Amino acid sequence: MKQDFIHTYVSVDCVIFGFDSENRLNILLVQRYSDENSGDNKKKLPGSLIFSNEGVDEAASRVLHELTGIKKMVLKQFKCFADPMRASSEIDITWMGKEYNHTIDRIITVAYLSLCKIDHKINSSKYDNVDWCPVDAIPTLPFDHNKIIKESLVEIRKWIDSDFSIIFELLPKKFTIRQLYQLYSAISEKQIDIKNFHKKISSFNYIIGLDEIEKNVSHRAARYYKFDAKVYKKNNAKLIK
Amino acid sequence: MKQDFIHTYVSVDCVIFGFDSENRLNILLVQRYSDENSGDNKKKLPGSLIFSNEGVDEAASRVLHELTGIKKMVLKQFKCFADPMRASSEIDITWMGKEYNHTIDRIITVAYLSLCKIDHKINSSKYDNVDWCPVDAIPTLPFDHNKIIKESLVEIRKWIDSDFSIIFELLPKKFTIRQLYQLYSAISEKQIDIKNFHKKISSFNYIIGLDEIEKNVSHRAARYYKFDAKVYKKNNAKLIK
Repeated sequence: MKQDFIHTYVSVDCVIFGFDSENRLNILLVQRYSDENSGDNKKKLPGSLIFSNEGVDEAASRVLHELTGIKKMVLKQFKCFADPMRASSEIDITWMGKEYNHTIDRIITVAYLSLCKIDHKINSSKYDNVDWCPVDAIPTLPFDHNKIIKESLVEIRKWIDSDFSIIFELLPKKFTIRQLYQLYSAISEKQIDIKNFHKKISSFNYIIGLDEIEKNVSHRAARYYKFDAKVYKKNNAKLIK
Repeated sequence: MKQDFIHTYVSVDCVIFGFDSENRLNILLVQRYSDENSGDNKKKLPGSLIFSNEGVDEAASRVLHELTGIKKMVLKQFKCFADPMRASSEIDITWMGKEYNHTIDRIITVAYLSLCKIDHKINSSKYDNVDWCPVDAIPTLPFDHNKIIKESLVEIRKWIDSDFSIIFELLPKKFTIRQLYQLYSAISEKQIDIKNFHKKISSFNYIIGLDEIEKNVSHRAARYYKFDAKVYKKNNAKLIK
């Protein structure tokens, strides 16, 4: 029995959310090592094996930084995926062999959530192709990356439910209440009445109205708002419920 | 660089909470392999390396069952602990060498939370010594087990905040409102006014009063209540806030 314990590689994978100008929730995907002969031109979640001197949190920070060039991003570990069959397809094993120069037949991954303002310039030091992909149009990904994304959607809902300030990581610095409403609706998947939403939001003293309205819009120009993190922290405000 | 990726063992560790008749929150600890020469008689969290055909959830279920003999227990993965130094003390390395018959110099663990009615009979097929230990009297444990317990306390609060039904896993089938209050206070670490608590609780239709009162108590005998999981689910009731 003793020799039957796994001795394995460990990776981190990052699900990075962004919210675009068409009010869709997006995830950052990268192109994985492409080999014309294998026909492997799949996208994947950004990730990496962890180094011997790293913890998993450090490895996830490294991946984020190599991927985006952005220094400070929120990052939250949400689950270890360790199904014995998660990396057993031939094409995945072949890719890992080339990428890491090892035969890897089992790999455990620790998944992280992160949030990125979608207007941030992505400046990757590692990948040529980094693309935002709407969550309702994610292609078939290698390993169990589709499963990881599915579970990350449940997780981001929980996260925003327990700390509403997290939602502002996805919005531009100045935003309209309509944008906040559309983002909240996209994440929560609940039908929320916009009038009630406005009423609720106007009771939050950490959402500050600016003396500025939208320009060059076809609809009635809306007022801009900003989020005041200090007031929020002081309140320890609770989520919309 | 390539050979610098870790290739490691992976374990699971379980933090199992119980609530005793003296209204203290407890955690189940086991005696680890004892060697008189090494003076190693420390307690530890119950855990195990994972087998090659297991996922982490299966391994955690196996540990729970070997530990308690109880078939159905709630179980929730909460965090992967992977600090490169977490298993680097000589006494820990020696113990792992004996227990697993391998030299293990790095080990990653996935931590789980579980809840057990403390009046359940613990019937371990693996350990001779399984003991409840109050959370405010946990001794110094090997590895990073003290840190895991500290973080598990934050996690159990979040869990009960997001799903109040979880708290009844810790109470006897019939309980008094005082017991529920004391358990909630022990977990939440908030000062809660008992009158407000009574008022709040009486508004919850899933907490059902029984035609039975305490017997042989020195204080005024209180009424017993039970939790109705079906009504709770129907309500999708929210936590006390």
